Amino acid sequence: MSIELTQPQVMLHQMVTDFADKKVKPIDMLIDKERDFPEELWKDIVNTGFLGLSLPEEYGGAGFDAIASSQTIYDLAVRNASIAFTLEGHYKTVDQVLKYATPELKEKYLPQATHRIFGFSSTEPQGGSNVMGHTANAVKEGDKWVLNGNKTMITNGGLAEVYCVLLKTSPNELSCFLVDEDMPGFKHGKREEFIGMNGTPVGEIFLENVMVSEDHLLGKIGQGVEIGDNAHYDARILMGAIAAGITEHALTIAVNYAKQREAIDTPIIQLHSIQTKITEIAIAKENVQLLYQEAAKLKVAGKSYAKVATMAKSYGGRASVTAADHALQVLGGYGYSREYPVEHLIRDARALQIAEGSLEKMMIEISKEVVNEREE
Amino acid sequence: MSIELTQPQVMLHQMVTDFADKKVKPIDMLIDKERDFPEELWKDIVNTGFLGLSLPEEYGGAGFDAIASSQTIYDLAVRNASIAFTLEGHYKTVDQVLKYATPELKEKYLPQATHRIFGFSSTEPQGGSNVMGHTANAVKEGDKWVLNGNKTMITNGGLAEVYCVLLKTSPNELSCFLVDEDMPGFKHGKREEFIGMNGTPVGEIFLENVMVSEDHLLGKIGQGVEIGDNAHYDARILMGAIAAGITEHALTIAVNYAKQREAIDTPIIQLHSIQTKITEIAIAKENVQLLYQEAAKLKVAGKSYAKVATMAKSYGGRASVTAADHALQVLGGYGYSREYPVEHLIRDARALQIAEGSLEKMMIEISKEVVNEREE
Amino acid sequence: MSIELTQPQVMLHQMVTDFADKKVKPIDMLIDKERDFPEELWKDIVNTGFLGLSLPEEYGGAGFDAIASSQTIYDLAVRNASIAFTLEGHYKTVDQVLKYATPELKEKYLPQATHRIFGFSSTEPQGGSNVMGHTANAVKEGDKWVLNGNKTMITNGGLAEVYCVLLKTSPNELSCFLVDEDMPGFKHGKREEFIGMNGTPVGEIFLENVMVSEDHLLGKIGQGVEIGDNAHYDARILMGAIAAGITEHALTIAVNYAKQREAIDTPIIQLHSIQTKITEIAIAKENVQLLYQEAAKLKVAGKSYAKVATMAKSYGGRASVTAADHALQVLGGYGYSREYPVEHLIRDARALQIAEGSLEKMMIEISKEVVNEREE
Amino acid sequence: MSIELTQPQVMLHQMVTDFADKKVKPIDMLIDKERDFPEELWKDIVNTGFLGLSLPEEYGGAGFDAIASSQTIYDLAVRNASIAFTLEGHYKTVDQVLKYATPELKEKYLPQATHRIFGFSSTEPQGGSNVMGHTANAVKEGDKWVLNGNKTMITNGGLAEVYCVLLKTSPNELSCFLVDEDMPGFKHGKREEFIGMNGTPVGEIFLENVMVSEDHLLGKIGQGVEIGDNAHYDARILMGAIAAGITEHALTIAVNYAKQREAIDTPIIQLHSIQTKITEIAIAKENVQLLYQEAAKLKVAGKSYAKVATMAKSYGGRASVTAADHALQVLGGYGYSREYPVEHLIRDARALQIAEGSLEKMMIEISKEVVNEREE
Repeated sequence: MSIELTQPQVMLHQMVTDFADKKVKPIDMLIDKERDFPEELWKDIVNTGFLGLSLPEEYGGAGFDAIASSQTIYDLAVRNASIAFTLEGHYKTVDQVLKYATPELKEKYLPQATHRIFGFSSTEPQGGSNVMGHTANAVKEGDKWVLNGNKTMITNGGLAEVYCVLLKTSPNELSCFLVDEDMPGFKHGKREEFIGMNGTPVGEIFLENVMVSEDHLLGKIGQGVEIGDNAHYDARILMGAIAAGITEHALTIAVNYAKQREAIDTPIIQLHSIQTKITEIAIAKENVQLLYQEAAKLKVAGKSYAKVATMAKSYGGRASVTAADHALQVLGGYGYSREYPVEHLIRDARALQIAEGSLEKMMIEISKEVVNEREE
Repeated sequence: MSIELTQPQVMLHQMVTDFADKKVKPIDMLIDKERDFPEELWKDIVNTGFLGLSLPEEYGGAGFDAIASSQTIYDLAVRNASIAFTLEGHYKTVDQVLKYATPELKEKYLPQATHRIFGFSSTEPQGGSNVMGHTANAVKEGDKWVLNGNKTMITNGGLAEVYCVLLKTSPNELSCFLVDEDMPGFKHGKREEFIGMNGTPVGEIFLENVMVSEDHLLGKIGQGVEIGDNAHYDARILMGAIAAGITEHALTIAVNYAKQREAIDTPIIQLHSIQTKITEIAIAKENVQLLYQEAAKLKVAGKSYAKVATMAKSYGGRASVTAADHALQVLGGYGYSREYPVEHLIRDARALQIAEGSLEKMMIEISKEVVNEREE
Repeated sequence: MSIELTQPQVMLHQMVTDFADKKVKPIDMLIDKERDFPEELWKDIVNTGFLGLSLPEEYGGAGFDAIASSQTIYDLAVRNASIAFTLEGHYKTVDQVLKYATPELKEKYLPQATHRIFGFSSTEPQGGSNVMGHTANAVKEGDKWVLNGNKTMITNGGLAEVYCVLLKTSPNELSCFLVDEDMPGFKHGKREEFIGMNGTPVGEIFLENVMVSEDHLLGKIGQGVEIGDNAHYDARILMGAIAAGITEHALTIAVNYAKQREAIDTPIIQLHSIQTKITEIAIAKENVQLLYQEAAKLKVAGKSYAKVATMAKSYGGRASVTAADHALQVLGGYGYSREYPVEHLIRDARALQIAEGSLEKMMIEISKEVVNEREE
Repeated sequence: MSIELTQPQVMLHQMVTDFADKKVKPIDMLIDKERDFPEELWKDIVNTGFLGLSLPEEYGGAGFDAIASSQTIYDLAVRNASIAFTLEGHYKTVDQVLKYATPELKEKYLPQATHRIFGFSSTEPQGGSNVMGHTANAVKEGDKWVLNGNKTMITNGGLAEVYCVLLKTSPNELSCFLVDEDMPGFKHGKREEFIGMNGTPVGEIFLENVMVSEDHLLGKIGQGVEIGDNAHYDARILMGAIAAGITEHALTIAVNYAKQREAIDTPIIQLHSIQTKITEIAIAKENVQLLYQEAAKLKVAGKSYAKVATMAKSYGGRASVTAADHALQVLGGYGYSREYPVEHLIRDARALQIAEGSLEKMMIEISKEVVNEREE
């Protein structure tokens, strides 16, 4: 393992893997099929403290850093990617509240982050992630902001109860507001019928004259894009961890199958075609894991981590799909079956090239980071 | 188009595309979702004569050659891959009856091939396609053969009513028998829960002391492997056509979406990242189509076509998955949705690296054909 | 073979392969090393009539069509890619003279095309193939055109004696002129030090007040871009043929080596890793050959062939590099040696993603053709 | 950077980069062209202490660990891969002497390792790296070993003065001996004419009744394969570092070119096709670097590093070729020229899939390590 975990991190890792082996692993396929987490699992997750993992202790959290949180996401994703994905959506949102909210807002909302799911909302039905085409907006009336509009493609949308939402405060300006599902005028919309990450709802919200006080503005007016970018970078470390987890899951399934399956009296693990696939999966896993851990270390060290985090997601998003596809082929007809746990790994992994910024956008962003680095 | 169609072939092509546009295209996603063909469509297919397409006219068929049948499979697969897949399973089986059966058996069964589905059965639960591990067998008793055993992974298994089955007639010898679901001792087993090609059942059969007369033996005793290989080669032309059809389907969806979807006031079709994907899909389609058409032409010309047919399937099987994946990415979040018709193309295409011989086996076979060619 | 050759084409094919086996094959590596064709080979090529292959008989040529010329290019490229590349540069230029020149110019120059090499010139040192940045120009003075400027990256530059040159006739307009190295003011510049296609010089020319009569204008004023495009499309069929030839060459070397090389008492041809590589090379070869032959057939049939020709070059340019690289790996340490004929295949093939339009440009062009096709 | 360097390591890194910038970088292309290191550079390398970098101080070395030595190899490889490759061949050999030699032999030879190059020899002309086919042998006569045979493909062969050689001591047994070029009966053979890594000779040696005392046996009789494996694992960390260095070199060239080259008034760095390539190179570099650093860290920590070291070489060997090829394409016609420093990066990088164990072998080894890991 590339990172040296501290003693508390080792204990966390032990606790998470125990929990995940006992409560998550057995229902991996069930979550995919039911398109939902069982009620009980959800309670367990809250009770075990997963939601407040990286929240400072003063707000009731466990105060772990990005190394610990990404390790936890990985440990969960090895057993079920959806749970990791839901936590990723929660963590990145909480992180922005922590970083940009007023002390009052933090005081009010951060303690809730240990038992209520948070979600970050930037996309709109038209214009995709293109800000210029957005119409949802916030207008100042007296000492209140009046929020209106429809936002889509929110990770945890429908499941989350608290949202950070990017809204136009002038034609070329986005600002970030915290809204609560309990506010009058707030409505959840429909859930997307996605093909993977089935435990995690992705949905829309409607704001109809939702009134919030001034301190529900995160950061300053016009700082929305920066906050959104920041959320993205945090998210990408965690999505790298998810990619690594799915790849490890695929590796385990492929190796276990190849060791027991025989072709003409020898386990297929001795066939070159099988060995090559297992090696490719293993290399992919090593690469993705080293990337997300490197990004986490850079973040913890207070260094620039956007480039490596974006690499973790963009390389990891592709490598995990390819790895899961190799595993499917190792299992042959069984891999192609819905009754075996391989095929949903492809569907889960496939989300990572789309959610939190398309692969194509990230490829451009990375090249810009590379050029900038060399100009400094 | 690479091939010059004859006048009757042009008419057939016109008829098929009309039929497919009207009856198949509108229910493509429904077939995937319901995991079945609608009863009515099935009747239409029989009534229109699709089942007897390549059957000689003396047996009630239309007498078309491999160029016409592969073109038809392609034309259907552009609208729905499953229907093409079911016909592929039927055609390759009927072709073996035509080639290897006694005149009496042909007289009896081939006219039925215009309205009853045929299926070819070689795999067993243990040992995969490894013949040595097979246990299903045929034993001669008087002037009858007594058939026993369990065969799996049969394309059209459960839907088909007539089967060509490879059975052991001595420890190292396979022979091919025609069985009918109406025979005493014949039973259909369960259907595989596959992730794609959902209109086409893949299932198992049980033979329990099924008694058949001598003329139900296709070819000679011990000719089973040859007949199975021959069925494979025929099938691979058609699977190449299916791959080309899926790829064309993906291309159409991607182009149509890219032309109307705008990003910052310009259709995304003008973005280099989108153009590159569309080009890759289009090249894949051209390659797969040229390959299966070439194999069909070689077959019609009486030349050796195993190598090119196997290339059509092995290249096509991979290229069509990649192409459909590119299309998914062009559509972004919509591509990742079950409500859009892209994602099932990946699932359908993915069958082609597994069914009718795994990709890995085909890669070896092709290399052997290449070496042999050069030694002649 | 996908195409049906006519009787004269079969004879041509026989003659070309005999010639190539005897005169070209033995000096393939020598041409690469010496960076030149031997004087004698050159005479043989002229005497055998290769230069006038597709020139109409009225001008002293053999009058073969695009199917025959691409087959010939392929047959040569299997033995040495450079000779094929030089002929490609010649053919595409002669074709434009034939299509766009005045009767007088054709009368004068086309008969020379059987023994003098022609070259097509469009690129300039600055601006690459971006026309807007070009400065070389033609100015009308009385009934003469005065030509000035420097053009680079001309296939056959230095070897060719007659050039079609794109020159600015107004700021946004390119026209095409025929110039002869014998004209006062014409000068050859230096040769590019390229890494492959070593028999074919790529070089520059200088025009300093070169005066030509009006009939040296090909087509109309401003038709330069169209003529250039047309030359490109013709060239791409032939470059597809070169790619196929290199790939076939790589296949032959790999198969021959794998059959005789033993690892632990068995020829390495029986290793899965070797078989897979041979199969990949063979599939690439089949695909590239089908593509260029399809483009040639479309051209001969008078149909639109730009899309498929561009596919032949863009797919072929990549596939031939990968194929040659696989062959290198099959030979291991020998493949990595300059004393074995594999490594130069990679260097030769690598030209095809750059010459006659970069891969990136072609990817865009193909997507446009695909979209246009679907709008008709 | 993933690793935390110690203070001495930081100073070393600074010294190496200064040296490499001043003495190596300016002659990178010269080394490739001349196929040799300049005499003076060689003296500088010795004088600066590079040869004894990881040798314990008691033998006159600097006593750096695998993290420092791989960092140094990387820092050199960024400027010229050959120098790094020659040092790699030296380091891995010295490491085996340090680990397996008798105290007397260490006393005698290790101090020489600061100014004489060492080389490790395992391959024979027939049988490749297949031990069973080997014929070079050692026979005990009295208290001497008599060595005979011919070994090939030795990194530094001809340049090195001291060799560790695997020789048969019985039909199924290899043992490792230290020989000196000064010994009677020792002869250097011819150099391989490889296409890359041109500064580093790869050559053969002949042993004709070379007599060595008993303490020239490394380890025990029959331990040859283990020592060879150990040399391989050490080498693979360093070859990963070379791959990362070449990739970084390619990245620098591509970015610098893309920033200054304009297409239609904008630097091509703003084109998506260029950005994508730069990103792919940058991701490859990050991955390879993280892999070899991880392997070095595992080695320093006394943990099992064979798997990750082999990944560094096998992934790095492929990724660096692809990266250099992307860089070539970014430079277009200039990239294809011998006068620009890109193309030789491809040739250099290509060695890494062949030297120190073929890619195919490593893919199998990795799969075995993966399976073993999971069985513990």
